[in-house]
Amino acid sequence: MIKNITQEAILAFEKNYRTNFVNSLSGYKSLSLIGTQNKAGQQNLAIFNSVFHVGANPPLIGFVARPSENYERHTIENILETGFYTINHVGLDFYEKAHQTAARYDRNSSEFDAVGLKNETLNDFKAPFVSESAIKIAVKFKEKIDIKSNGTSIIIGEIVEVYIKESVIAEDGFVNLSHANGIAGGGLDAYYKTELLARFSYAKVGKGLDKIN
Amino acid sequence: MIKNITQEAILAFEKNYRTNFVNSLSGYKSLSLIGTQNKAGQQNLAIFNSVFHVGANPPLIGFVARPSENYERHTIENILETGFYTINHVGLDFYEKAHQTAARYDRNSSEFDAVGLKNETLNDFKAPFVSESAIKIAVKFKEKIDIKSNGTSIIIGEIVEVYIKESVIAEDGFVNLSHANGIAGGGLDAYYKTELLARFSYAKVGKGLDKIN
Repeated sequence: MIKNITQEAILAFEKNYRTNFVNSLSGYKSLSLIGTQNKAGQQNLAIFNSVFHVGANPPLIGFVARPSENYERHTIENILETGFYTINHVGLDFYEKAHQTAARYDRNSSEFDAVGLKNETLNDFKAPFVSESAIKIAVKFKEKIDIKSNGTSIIIGEIVEVYIKESVIAEDGFVNLSHANGIAGGGLDAYYKTELLARFSYAKVGKGLDKIN
Repeated sequence: MIKNITQEAILAFEKNYRTNFVNSLSGYKSLSLIGTQNKAGQQNLAIFNSVFHVGANPPLIGFVARPSENYERHTIENILETGFYTINHVGLDFYEKAHQTAARYDRNSSEFDAVGLKNETLNDFKAPFVSESAIKIAVKFKEKIDIKSNGTSIIIGEIVEVYIKESVIAEDGFVNLSHANGIAGGGLDAYYKTELLARFSYAKVGKGLDKIN
């Protein structure tokens, strides 16, 4: 049965119920660990389910940051302080550890140690990578955009470098995320296993679609 | 083997290769059909893989729009003209039709007819819904934000009403997208089937995670 839920009803929901419900409505989400450090070298690692594609040329990537939440504030503070961060895909083999980074660890403790993930410095980049991740992206901060409607921010960065398992890149540049041990997010706390069903050719008027591969 | 790909290398890639590659890097994506109409009542339907969660209270939802592409221009023009649109989750049973909406159909033809999806008017809302979709969201335009780095826009809207299969909502408000016939996106043209692996409890310092359900 189809249920009709009005905005009034959503606003009247108990807080946790509303958060679970509305967070589910946008559909599947990317799952990333964002690695940063402050000028003193203190590292931070936090899970985000809001990384999104912004553009390919120049290569730009964004994420949504709610400044009111503790674990995210450390991330944003460090990004604004150093100008650099890493985006590391969450993998099937360590998603429980990734979830645990959301706990409100003290500013002076590293989530890498707390949850048992290995940090890695690559090419002297000024932010730590997650060694276990199959797709690691070095990012340079470009702009912070504020959403007036609710005070949330969007952080846009430029991709500086990528570290990726060579075997997951197809001949035409496509990356099969399920081959890269990928896992999709949903709501606030859900983890989905995936399997590639199909890729389709560029859609044209009056022409049927072909499957790619 | 781990491959290191620099920004210089990305910029030197052949255009389609670069587009496929960078579009894959942000991870899994939501897949939605956005329904609009202009003041004259001409309907438009277009697939987007960039819908994201913005906030639960008030319930806000966003998407990224590249104004240079034809099919998206109709969507944005209609949204700015009427102030209303619908976001309909793409389902496993009609994702090939959803992909075909990306073709550059003429302004005066409806993608509903062209690809064989059924339009539906609900509660006199000023934009058409996709009848086949298990999760349909009526949205009111709130703000358009421009990303300086590449001229892309982000459209933020307020959720006015939701039409959803009652059976997919869990006791705590969570929506199991794989029960809702959901399908995740990747890159420009990839479709992934999903299966819920786990939900974890709210992470706390010094406390192990529990599985929910």
